[in-house]
Amino acid sequence: MSLAPSGYNVAPLTGIPAVHPGDNIAALLTSAINANDIAIHDNDVLVVAQKIVSKSEGAVVELSTVVPGHEATELSAIVNKDPRLVELILASSVRVLRSVPGVLITETHHGFICANAGIDASNSLGPDTVILLPEDPDRSARQLRAAIANLTGTALAVVISDTFNRPWREGSTNVGIGTAGFVPLDDSRGEPDDSGKVLHATLVSIADEVASAALLVMGVSGGVPAAFLSGLKLDASNEGSQALLRDPDRDLFR
Amino acid sequence: MSLAPSGYNVAPLTGIPAVHPGDNIAALLTSAINANDIAIHDNDVLVVAQKIVSKSEGAVVELSTVVPGHEATELSAIVNKDPRLVELILASSVRVLRSVPGVLITETHHGFICANAGIDASNSLGPDTVILLPEDPDRSARQLRAAIANLTGTALAVVISDTFNRPWREGSTNVGIGTAGFVPLDDSRGEPDDSGKVLHATLVSIADEVASAALLVMGVSGGVPAAFLSGLKLDASNEGSQALLRDPDRDLFR
Repeated sequence: MSLAPSGYNVAPLTGIPAVHPGDNIAALLTSAINANDIAIHDNDVLVVAQKIVSKSEGAVVELSTVVPGHEATELSAIVNKDPRLVELILASSVRVLRSVPGVLITETHHGFICANAGIDASNSLGPDTVILLPEDPDRSARQLRAAIANLTGTALAVVISDTFNRPWREGSTNVGIGTAGFVPLDDSRGEPDDSGKVLHATLVSIADEVASAALLVMGVSGGVPAAFLSGLKLDASNEGSQALLRDPDRDLFR
Repeated sequence: MSLAPSGYNVAPLTGIPAVHPGDNIAALLTSAINANDIAIHDNDVLVVAQKIVSKSEGAVVELSTVVPGHEATELSAIVNKDPRLVELILASSVRVLRSVPGVLITETHHGFICANAGIDASNSLGPDTVILLPEDPDRSARQLRAAIANLTGTALAVVISDTFNRPWREGSTNVGIGTAGFVPLDDSRGEPDDSGKVLHATLVSIADEVASAALLVMGVSGGVPAAFLSGLKLDASNEGSQALLRDPDRDLFR
């Protein structure tokens, strides 16, 4: 079943100023929606780059304040990264999956498997400032959804988006690290397809496909930190993105 | 840099009839573009489901014609799949990565790592007919682009799309297994970002993000076999999708 029988539109939310800790991004995003002349309806989809969510929540660290421990110091020599950054990566992680020169892949406390525990250099906060992932991206998405509903009277679906690499294929793609307001994993298993056959294995990550659609307007270098998708008919839900995390027992590659 | 500074639109190409071996899908897709009242311009993006490309090329096999060999018979007992299907999977593959009950993951001769070498049951050709991947999906994309240019005078970007699972996260996402007419891997490494910093590691799979955007209108169960994306400003190129295949030497998870 198409999630947008009449198609959908993806618009960049331009004009959002640089975000700093404590900023009200719900207000900034609502202003940008208005300034971009976008008509909003319940269940339209707002995709927000993780970086501005983290910045607004104060999930930023000055590397000069970090004292690397023994494990971080040893690992930093293997992966050829700043030991203070490696200390932060380990503090955000439950497990190291791979560590080779230039690459450190861990499982974060959220359950994400990605490079550097998702910690990025900041574009705007200073040369030695890094940005951590939000502590609980689903909570961030829920709060953003609620705050925008308060401001506008409209209940949007919200995706907090990040750019992850993956095995086997070059080039990152985008994933929904936090979601609110919709079913992020479409489970059509057991439904008949268009020829009447019963489907066996179709389980699609709607959240990640939406995040990927948004990246095309947000820009590879992250210049536009949010996108608005109009016309999708996503199933409403109170669940977060937990269903997107594969149980390690079902994972053949970790 | 945004790939669609004014946003973009994704439309389902509805009304395409069931495809059979030998059908001219360039003509079917052009008719569907017209019937859906879509204005087309050079470099607009056509995304086509792998299944109809394979069907039109005759990449279909009746399982009753397949005699499984010794290796396929042994492996079929492990993965609990039809030994004739396993024979076809092995014939399409250069290597088995994982084989456990219910799951057989291989590297195909194209270089794709996916379940069952991308071989699917058919929706419409009969209960024991399976559909292989196109022999050379980049060639399929190039031919489709050229045939549509002949019919319409417009040179589209073309993506042949398939739905792959992946490690770590539940839910499949869509990938571009064949491309023509655009740069499928955006390499912004070394370009300054919006704050003037030089980027180090941003390499985005445009082909896969486009395929994911299209899936949202094509439908989880594959009811709509093509989508049309208007408004994207992709860089034109004669290359195919080879750059999306990670060199095994650079891959930490195979």
